[in-house]
Amino acid sequence: MSSHHIVRDDQEPALIIANGASCNNELLGQLLEWSPLVIVLDSAIERVIKLDIKIDVLLGDFDRGFDPETYKTSQFPIEIVHAPDQDKTDLEKAFDYLIQRKIPAVNVVWATGRRADHTITNLTNIVRYRNLLKIVILDDHSKIFLLPKKFEKWYTAKTPISLIPIGVVNGISSTNLQYPLQNDTLTIGYRTGSSNAVAQDGLVSIFHEDGDLLLMECND
Amino acid sequence: MSSHHIVRDDQEPALIIANGASCNNELLGQLLEWSPLVIVLDSAIERVIKLDIKIDVLLGDFDRGFDPETYKTSQFPIEIVHAPDQDKTDLEKAFDYLIQRKIPAVNVVWATGRRADHTITNLTNIVRYRNLLKIVILDDHSKIFLLPKKFEKWYTAKTPISLIPIGVVNGISSTNLQYPLQNDTLTIGYRTGSSNAVAQDGLVSIFHEDGDLLLMECND
Repeated sequence: MSSHHIVRDDQEPALIIANGASCNNELLGQLLEWSPLVIVLDSAIERVIKLDIKIDVLLGDFDRGFDPETYKTSQFPIEIVHAPDQDKTDLEKAFDYLIQRKIPAVNVVWATGRRADHTITNLTNIVRYRNLLKIVILDDHSKIFLLPKKFEKWYTAKTPISLIPIGVVNGISSTNLQYPLQNDTLTIGYRTGSSNAVAQDGLVSIFHEDGDLLLMECND
Repeated sequence: MSSHHIVRDDQEPALIIANGASCNNELLGQLLEWSPLVIVLDSAIERVIKLDIKIDVLLGDFDRGFDPETYKTSQFPIEIVHAPDQDKTDLEKAFDYLIQRKIPAVNVVWATGRRADHTITNLTNIVRYRNLLKIVILDDHSKIFLLPKKFEKWYTAKTPISLIPIGVVNGISSTNLQYPLQNDTLTIGYRTGSSNAVAQDGLVSIFHEDGDLLLMECND
């Protein structure tokens, strides 16, 4: 058994393939490289199958005449999770599934693009999983995650950094950003911290007192 | 002069082509059909030129060595609006330009897709233009606008309707929706009204007491 297999356990981030726009194959390949637990939301399954990816879990409400049994042979072994709750999105149900399995972290692809209502819901609903699941949403242009109250990370100069408040976020201060924040308040729709950037190679620190603040690393 | 020309004036919605993902040519063609005032944000101009569209206004900060003069001949007559304000997005500056010209309504395309920070900022920032400019954002899957406190519109049964609160929205009530709201509160990130639908052919009414509520008509 290679060292690759020794470190592989449920502490690695799982991968959820949601039902928005597909990402490029390079990004998907990188995320699949360590063979994490792969969960696919039902309406994405046909597109995923075409990419010749082995999946571990197929989850959804299986409405609109969808028959999950079809994949029991072609994707053997596969877990089929029927999640009919109409008050939650399929993505939220997948998060709940991971929390139940005590998996601490997840990367999510195909959660953006196509329908704008799904995109904004997927991006903003991750805030309710604070302390439950470490979620990173990725697409071809973006890497998105919820900030802890105190955040520090090393970045190269000029890296684009956008701070998007989901609601109102108070007491935001930063170091090493091109447009520094000092005990500032950001409010979605009115004052956001979009299109900031790292000032110079080194640690960036972002603190906030309350509220839910997303960090987005985006590139054209 | 045809009746087509008689009704054409600045009361028609203008069209802004922003700098996100391109929409399909059919949607763009429909919006261009009445030859509205067409504004292009600087970083989108090369993609727009390739589509052989005559534009009226080119607006942006023209950073990164961008030279707007190039288009003065090929797009003659064209107005070049240099808008260097670093505290606003180019899209906000285009809205400001229209307000200054007393144009009451605008359709916006290419405002979603690609960078997630731009998408969420473009979608949510329209709330601050309430009573100033009637804004509709469109892409291949979505039509998005800010609701007045009292909204009524005729829809066919099963039309998907998503209600997305930008912040907290109180006192929401609806008629003729599949999942009715009755003096409800929606909060971005925590409780949204995504993936609702019209119950039966007829008028849908949506009322809210305070806050900013977006309506999204989206299709897969």
